[in-house]
Amino acid sequence: MKNGGRTLGVAMIGQGFMGRAHSNAFLQVSRFFDTPYDLKMKIVCGRDKTRLEEMARRWNWDETATDWRAVLERNDVDVVDIATPNNLHAEMAIAAASAGKIVLCEKPLARNLDEATRMAEAASKVPNLVWFNYRRVPAIGLAKRIIDEGRLGEIYHYRANYLQSWGADPHVSGWRFNPADAGSGATGDLLAHLIDTAQMLNGRITRVCATMHTFAPGRRVDDAVLAQSYFANGSVATFEASRYAIGLQNHNSFEIHGSKGMLRFNLEDLNRLHFLDAVAPAHLQGAADILVTGPDHPYASHFWPPGHIIGYEHTFIATLADFLNALAKQDSFHADFRDALEVQKVLDAVERSSEQRAWVSL
Amino acid sequence: MKNGGRTLGVAMIGQGFMGRAHSNAFLQVSRFFDTPYDLKMKIVCGRDKTRLEEMARRWNWDETATDWRAVLERNDVDVVDIATPNNLHAEMAIAAASAGKIVLCEKPLARNLDEATRMAEAASKVPNLVWFNYRRVPAIGLAKRIIDEGRLGEIYHYRANYLQSWGADPHVSGWRFNPADAGSGATGDLLAHLIDTAQMLNGRITRVCATMHTFAPGRRVDDAVLAQSYFANGSVATFEASRYAIGLQNHNSFEIHGSKGMLRFNLEDLNRLHFLDAVAPAHLQGAADILVTGPDHPYASHFWPPGHIIGYEHTFIATLADFLNALAKQDSFHADFRDALEVQKVLDAVERSSEQRAWVSL
Amino acid sequence: MKNGGRTLGVAMIGQGFMGRAHSNAFLQVSRFFDTPYDLKMKIVCGRDKTRLEEMARRWNWDETATDWRAVLERNDVDVVDIATPNNLHAEMAIAAASAGKIVLCEKPLARNLDEATRMAEAASKVPNLVWFNYRRVPAIGLAKRIIDEGRLGEIYHYRANYLQSWGADPHVSGWRFNPADAGSGATGDLLAHLIDTAQMLNGRITRVCATMHTFAPGRRVDDAVLAQSYFANGSVATFEASRYAIGLQNHNSFEIHGSKGMLRFNLEDLNRLHFLDAVAPAHLQGAADILVTGPDHPYASHFWPPGHIIGYEHTFIATLADFLNALAKQDSFHADFRDALEVQKVLDAVERSSEQRAWVSL
Amino acid sequence: MKNGGRTLGVAMIGQGFMGRAHSNAFLQVSRFFDTPYDLKMKIVCGRDKTRLEEMARRWNWDETATDWRAVLERNDVDVVDIATPNNLHAEMAIAAASAGKIVLCEKPLARNLDEATRMAEAASKVPNLVWFNYRRVPAIGLAKRIIDEGRLGEIYHYRANYLQSWGADPHVSGWRFNPADAGSGATGDLLAHLIDTAQMLNGRITRVCATMHTFAPGRRVDDAVLAQSYFANGSVATFEASRYAIGLQNHNSFEIHGSKGMLRFNLEDLNRLHFLDAVAPAHLQGAADILVTGPDHPYASHFWPPGHIIGYEHTFIATLADFLNALAKQDSFHADFRDALEVQKVLDAVERSSEQRAWVSL
Repeated sequence: MKNGGRTLGVAMIGQGFMGRAHSNAFLQVSRFFDTPYDLKMKIVCGRDKTRLEEMARRWNWDETATDWRAVLERNDVDVVDIATPNNLHAEMAIAAASAGKIVLCEKPLARNLDEATRMAEAASKVPNLVWFNYRRVPAIGLAKRIIDEGRLGEIYHYRANYLQSWGADPHVSGWRFNPADAGSGATGDLLAHLIDTAQMLNGRITRVCATMHTFAPGRRVDDAVLAQSYFANGSVATFEASRYAIGLQNHNSFEIHGSKGMLRFNLEDLNRLHFLDAVAPAHLQGAADILVTGPDHPYASHFWPPGHIIGYEHTFIATLADFLNALAKQDSFHADFRDALEVQKVLDAVERSSEQRAWVSL
Repeated sequence: MKNGGRTLGVAMIGQGFMGRAHSNAFLQVSRFFDTPYDLKMKIVCGRDKTRLEEMARRWNWDETATDWRAVLERNDVDVVDIATPNNLHAEMAIAAASAGKIVLCEKPLARNLDEATRMAEAASKVPNLVWFNYRRVPAIGLAKRIIDEGRLGEIYHYRANYLQSWGADPHVSGWRFNPADAGSGATGDLLAHLIDTAQMLNGRITRVCATMHTFAPGRRVDDAVLAQSYFANGSVATFEASRYAIGLQNHNSFEIHGSKGMLRFNLEDLNRLHFLDAVAPAHLQGAADILVTGPDHPYASHFWPPGHIIGYEHTFIATLADFLNALAKQDSFHADFRDALEVQKVLDAVERSSEQRAWVSL
Repeated sequence: MKNGGRTLGVAMIGQGFMGRAHSNAFLQVSRFFDTPYDLKMKIVCGRDKTRLEEMARRWNWDETATDWRAVLERNDVDVVDIATPNNLHAEMAIAAASAGKIVLCEKPLARNLDEATRMAEAASKVPNLVWFNYRRVPAIGLAKRIIDEGRLGEIYHYRANYLQSWGADPHVSGWRFNPADAGSGATGDLLAHLIDTAQMLNGRITRVCATMHTFAPGRRVDDAVLAQSYFANGSVATFEASRYAIGLQNHNSFEIHGSKGMLRFNLEDLNRLHFLDAVAPAHLQGAADILVTGPDHPYASHFWPPGHIIGYEHTFIATLADFLNALAKQDSFHADFRDALEVQKVLDAVERSSEQRAWVSL
Repeated sequence: MKNGGRTLGVAMIGQGFMGRAHSNAFLQVSRFFDTPYDLKMKIVCGRDKTRLEEMARRWNWDETATDWRAVLERNDVDVVDIATPNNLHAEMAIAAASAGKIVLCEKPLARNLDEATRMAEAASKVPNLVWFNYRRVPAIGLAKRIIDEGRLGEIYHYRANYLQSWGADPHVSGWRFNPADAGSGATGDLLAHLIDTAQMLNGRITRVCATMHTFAPGRRVDDAVLAQSYFANGSVATFEASRYAIGLQNHNSFEIHGSKGMLRFNLEDLNRLHFLDAVAPAHLQGAADILVTGPDHPYASHFWPPGHIIGYEHTFIATLADFLNALAKQDSFHADFRDALEVQKVLDAVERSSEQRAWVSL
């Protein structure tokens, strides 16, 4: 038992790409952070027994299970982590919360607003987390700090794109293209991230006007979504998410213009943030290309020396570290199910707007 | 009389920033290009006699005049160039065309669709040009060539922003902020450029959904405009133009994603074009940063050796060179009043869409 | 016992920053790669018992030890990894090799050429590795592939800089500033990396002319080193390494110009490589900004999906994976002690050149 | 006669690329700047009568002449501008100065130090200028200002490259490849620019160690030159100039690291300067990408509004404007023949160092 804390037994449901990213976070969190709990990676649950065994061996899970409901009854499981396709989130999260477990859930929280509302209600009784991992990108943490320090002034424009291209392959398939499993396409998969980051950085979105578009003949989820919106603070925004943005793989970017400055970020260069200080001496103004790896930057000192960059997986590790520390101190943690519900409300408005070809208020 | 051509007497109306840019083009075109006409810079017209005299001296105009209508009657004036505030374009252009003059006009063509329609009608009888000078940015010419060569394949996404910040100064004023003079704000000033470039590169826009927004209290023109749209070729687009994009001065940019490649451009780096060839060997794919100054690039050989960059003013020079050559060969020239009318139709749809909070078809 | 291989017991000597990076590699290698051996993290050795206990707990070492010689006698230790200050490398590596252990050693191999020669001799009898981890940066692997494919043609210029700034702090201290411990300053610490990468990509260096320079008053190691050199293939090079390059933290970069193309890399953006294909159509030539995270790129498929970037630590993981696979197949592995000896010969020539103010041949 | 000044009659000798750049400057200087003199473009001199006639017509020269010595005797010629191959500079400049003319001369000043010394001596009696035009790149002017404001602190490192690729073409020829005409290859052509900029920004160079290298078989001038050096202020430098840097056309770049900040520039992006303020709050430090087109930037207000970039030719225009204003005020002007002599001393030391394979002091 490290640091006088207690042990937490973890069960994870899911055996895909996200299952790997979460497993890595459970394994690595105590290497890089002082954590108040000793995590025991008890059980990995899924349907495919053979792949589960391989996954358990590779990622150090003690056991495997194919019946996730049975896992909820075990006393040595304190935390249930849901890394499944979207259609299973609601049922699993509600059951886990009802069983009194700490609940962690992949994003998007749900396929639709109804599910998300019920999930947030259920989870309100237990500690909970939604894996909006990009909140813990050091550069995004720094963006939040710069905004909180008042260095952007009054915000005028918010502009964010999440651009990928893998959907343009006609042979691509899987649950992400089935509306019953995924809820939506680019909207839930990509726009959800943009909205969570936007609401964290710039406050509540109040109105949207959106277009969901499918390029692939016969495909039943959206390949791309475009949106205009207003924030409660009076700023205006454009959002765009696509799986047909040939040339880009994971271009999750934002630009913010305020009365005192500008910020720019792109996940494909996640160790960098660009900040223009519009109150600096006029002859020196320019977007500073900040390599966010220094001792004064979020999370950086937990990893490697300045200039030694981190990658995608570290955002999950830092998310988990923050969650465990908040849990020990009984502090609030974000993003939780309520934050994710706020995202889902926007996604729901986006879908209605696109359907009705009209502005929708939130 | 050079090259066996004939002399063209030019009169320009306007004495502001655009008057300087046009004057420079008239002066410089025959330095860098072989032109079939010998331009005589006859008369600069405007209201402020003192400033006109200074302008004539500085830019080599033979005479000044404060009565532009009288100028139309002169036989030694073949070309009338309109570089005035927008509210004067229609009256002047229609009169000049009626007088049988070659008519050149600054963009946006007009304050509104009605004016533009009448102007295009009047100008249809004479050679004419609209100064959508960015068509002659070498990098944009190269983008056009790449698209025409089929290197982008089927277009999926078009995304363009024209971002400036000078409107955020509360002390800024002038005709550009008066609806009666300018017609609109960011829409006519900046979005017009985006739409012309877009329709040149990607064809006709068929539907728009737009938001015009004013940040400055009491200001009566739009400071920013956001739009979603569809093109006739099935691609979807987002457009954004603003005078409140703190941190940027002249960021006129586009990105295009097609089935075979991607293009990116930004006017603040006007000598560069980024092209990603998505049919290149997979391990080599990346956006090529092309310095568009080589002998195989549009206009470049007319200016300086490879790597010796050009600036803003050269786009006017190249526009004029192309116009004169088309004139001599009796070829069609673009952008002309009809192209500009097509832009105005989109701007009109944008204004109606914003007013009605609804999609508008073209 | 995974994959029918056998277990390898590992002992690591060292408890600093490099000890962490190596520990992480031992822990993570079998998560991301199929490895033919099951690594047992047996013992971490060092002088400070208290910090060792903490390190063992954090990084999962079974035991701690303060007497590294005793560790060499243990039968359950197959691999000895040396992550200590440079002055201990020779004694430890020679003893470990003499004890028949597989020997892994941090770079620079030694403080001087004499030590390095003796080490390479001793290690020639056992499997061995030197942690020139940057060979496994995916972008550097891709650079090697592009060169091997003949896409650069005949090489003319090689240019590499390793620029950091932490040495400019007057309060900085430690073994790296003591000649007896470190051998040299920027030369062994930074230039060593440049030389190893250069010789891997561009072959043998044959002559050097160098300047070692110390900015800090009273400091006894070099803060910076500049060098010109020739390669056996006829190309010429400039190298520069510094701990006084204010503004940069870990700017390890190279540029190569060959008759058919150009390559550019910078470790601060380690997921990117820039390649210009000078035999592409002239109008399309530009440095392609390749995001080296795709299925056709080295190592990338072992980590995350395209566009999900990796960081510094992954280069150690990939190094270890390659080493273990080479070991199982009895293939040669690079960089080994002989490669590191070749680097040391260049460093030695650099030191002599700087002292003699003259060119030195290798 | 503008501004109460007097008329200056100009004769230019030279009809190549540089002749065009100078002609353009003479034509344009009074468009963009208030100049105290009215320049009369009297005579363009050269050997090829036919091409001279075409040049005079295109660039507005009143007359042509093939005997430059006769031109020196004309009373209506006040200024003699030398834009010929290097081998003619000395004879012409000395004769023009002896005739009491204002002398302007292309760089490099001379083929060798002896010529340069005699030229500087002769020119000391008349107003004179050497066309080190890059001193008037606005971004380089801003760099100078930033250094003069003390924002870099004590300088540690200076690093500059001038990289082109046109020399790698085996079919390229002309006077630039003939030692008798050019003096040297990359050294006089490209390194000369780097040295002038370096000595303007960072003071006097005191020692060099250089390598001149020729790639092309049989070529008798250097294709590339590498140099290390010390400045009088204690900083160390690397310089590299090449005509074999495949992939680059006009990459004239520098980086400077001082105790308080860093600067970076590249002529291929001549409207930008990168400045890192190392005394800014630590979490905000990054290289600011300054678009040097604002009202607070050198020369910018003479050209176009902020964000409307300028090109190569504008550096000649601004050079001439500064010269004319200095002339009217009887102020000193730089770069003059003495500055260029200081450059030539360094080039001479470079040549001796390369020949002797040794360091050479200045």
